[in-house]
Amino acid sequence: MDLNNSVGIVKRQYFTFAQDEAMPLDSGETLGPVTVAYETYGRLNPERSNAILIVHALSGDAHVAGYHSAAETNPGWWDDCIGPGKAFDTDKYFVICSNVIGGCQGSTGPSSVNPGTGKPYGLSFPVITVGDMVRAQAQLMDHLGIDKLMAVAGGSMGGMQVLQWTVDYPERVMAALPIATTARHSPMLIAFSEVGRQAIYADPNWNAGDYYDGPRPNTGLALARMIGHITYLSEQSMQSKFGRRLQKREHFGFEFDTDFAIESYLQYNGRRFTDRFDANSYLYITKAMDYFDLCNGHGSLVKAFANSGEITYLVISFTSDWLYPTYHAKEMVGALTTAGADVTFTDLESTWGHDAFLLEVDTMTGLIGDFLERVSAEHGIRLPQPTP
Amino acid sequence: MDLNNSVGIVKRQYFTFAQDEAMPLDSGETLGPVTVAYETYGRLNPERSNAILIVHALSGDAHVAGYHSAAETNPGWWDDCIGPGKAFDTDKYFVICSNVIGGCQGSTGPSSVNPGTGKPYGLSFPVITVGDMVRAQAQLMDHLGIDKLMAVAGGSMGGMQVLQWTVDYPERVMAALPIATTARHSPMLIAFSEVGRQAIYADPNWNAGDYYDGPRPNTGLALARMIGHITYLSEQSMQSKFGRRLQKREHFGFEFDTDFAIESYLQYNGRRFTDRFDANSYLYITKAMDYFDLCNGHGSLVKAFANSGEITYLVISFTSDWLYPTYHAKEMVGALTTAGADVTFTDLESTWGHDAFLLEVDTMTGLIGDFLERVSAEHGIRLPQPTP
Repeated sequence: MDLNNSVGIVKRQYFTFAQDEAMPLDSGETLGPVTVAYETYGRLNPERSNAILIVHALSGDAHVAGYHSAAETNPGWWDDCIGPGKAFDTDKYFVICSNVIGGCQGSTGPSSVNPGTGKPYGLSFPVITVGDMVRAQAQLMDHLGIDKLMAVAGGSMGGMQVLQWTVDYPERVMAALPIATTARHSPMLIAFSEVGRQAIYADPNWNAGDYYDGPRPNTGLALARMIGHITYLSEQSMQSKFGRRLQKREHFGFEFDTDFAIESYLQYNGRRFTDRFDANSYLYITKAMDYFDLCNGHGSLVKAFANSGEITYLVISFTSDWLYPTYHAKEMVGALTTAGADVTFTDLESTWGHDAFLLEVDTMTGLIGDFLERVSAEHGIRLPQPTP
Repeated sequence: MDLNNSVGIVKRQYFTFAQDEAMPLDSGETLGPVTVAYETYGRLNPERSNAILIVHALSGDAHVAGYHSAAETNPGWWDDCIGPGKAFDTDKYFVICSNVIGGCQGSTGPSSVNPGTGKPYGLSFPVITVGDMVRAQAQLMDHLGIDKLMAVAGGSMGGMQVLQWTVDYPERVMAALPIATTARHSPMLIAFSEVGRQAIYADPNWNAGDYYDGPRPNTGLALARMIGHITYLSEQSMQSKFGRRLQKREHFGFEFDTDFAIESYLQYNGRRFTDRFDANSYLYITKAMDYFDLCNGHGSLVKAFANSGEITYLVISFTSDWLYPTYHAKEMVGALTTAGADVTFTDLESTWGHDAFLLEVDTMTGLIGDFLERVSAEHGIRLPQPTP
């Protein structure tokens, strides 16, 4: 545990709603009760106006900063950007992050017990959308007494939730930071999602999603993760990080063992992923991403953003991100500008591919920190008093 | 069958060698006897100097042009470029294409019967390299009485064989056309290869490669093909070809069925691939590609090409090919130029991704046709007399 500029020891919290009346979903189905796991860092000001919601990507969770115990060596997934003096400065802002519904890190998802049957939902869990994820987050904001968020921020699928917030709840958002994302999931993204899902379906242990009392479809899930993992990197970052280096050998093995470091890295990370992730959640969340298209129900992006004109945006893309290429960000920026929003757009030079949103910390710290200061000043937000 | 500018009905032929003395392989193992399946089109001139060897990519075979029967509707895999008046003009040149060893379309590979056991090799087939593939092709050229090829041409893994020819047999090649390829398989290519192999290993029917008398690991092979297929396309080509179009439905299904056209396309092509390809061959050929690095044993690319200075090269890359990006071609061109070779390099503007080498027919017809005319003139090659 490294407490330097850290939010320190944090605790996962839970909020449960829709006990009496189930939450309506975009599919027409309903879900209830719904539990949302979340964490908070920093202090809410008396006006309750300095709250920032961080929304996570496919494999993320509510644990975005700090440590769950003194024994932990790895902090939350975006700890580099969240803490005292960091991009999202917890000395100034009250930061909230919740696990998406459909997930497997404390929020209601396919591995949760279906109260109707007393057994895990599995595939009887309803298909959810990014809109549904955001609807559950809005309930959490109600619960926390936060009428209007100072900002919503996130990368990748997190960025989709950011955009969805500004379309569905424009009156509840002052500023939005969609990072390394898109307003419409592209066919290439759908293609990679679908191949990952097919890898899970192909695992005999998957058993049509009914595996919670038996062996898990970890082979399929690891394969899906390996496919995804490649797409988060760039050709350049793989060249510089691995090249054609061999893994613990001097010469080619001339057999079907691991020869190259990149193979070993992918296999290791694929296996490790199965320790913390549920295969059914992978199916549900990728499906939600595939369905994501802000034009749906609006006809065009400009119309989708019709009521978002009062929101201040910071849109960030990365030059080597071939999964969410820069032109997606530009399309979004064009529509937002037409809709009258105040948009700052930066295409950051980076060789890290899609993962850049987690790695380009120095650049983002300045960029995001300055942006949030501006939003905070424009809205006259009082920062919490320093602790004595 | 469309006989317009076609080489017409063609026949697969076979050449078997290494019956008495097995062929040495780069691994140190040997292989024998070795059969090479091949096809030829056009006529060899009396000097036997107008022969062009076409070398195929991962999933290709010897059937590069024409039809095997009048009932066939689809011609060979590069029929657009090979035939009378086409890029590789069979009125002028004698075109040969052979199936690589390790393959499954008539040449000796893991699905062939091991004469030592009377059963298919499976994983007892030795691991082969691109160098081994080329060594077998050189034996075929000996058999056909062709001392020196006017040209060797191919895209993707075909391009690797082209380069290997010019390094291993520089005295036997006048001109080389490496297209959409690399001189060193990149870590990203290795990563995608390995995930495809893992998908095959994960199929219970694979049975460590011993499946020829039982059900085949088609689920794993189809998955590997789906992964590969995505990488052959570009984000742009998928956007223009599929976009977010739904497959035979008006609305999202909100279940784990196929929603999008791109999903259906990948599934269909994945399944169809299993009709014509062997999973073990997929393992062996991708491994050969991963091992491909012309620097091996030479220390540098320039040194590898040290004896290739007399060869005339036409190097072609494509702007949207993210699997074999243009800078790979440039690295190759730099080394070849330093080695003193005559190199023409073109980075063709295309939105088709890696598949461009099969699709940008009009541009390539002019480019390749002119290049071959120049080579033919420079070497004083007499074209065969027109048939009366």
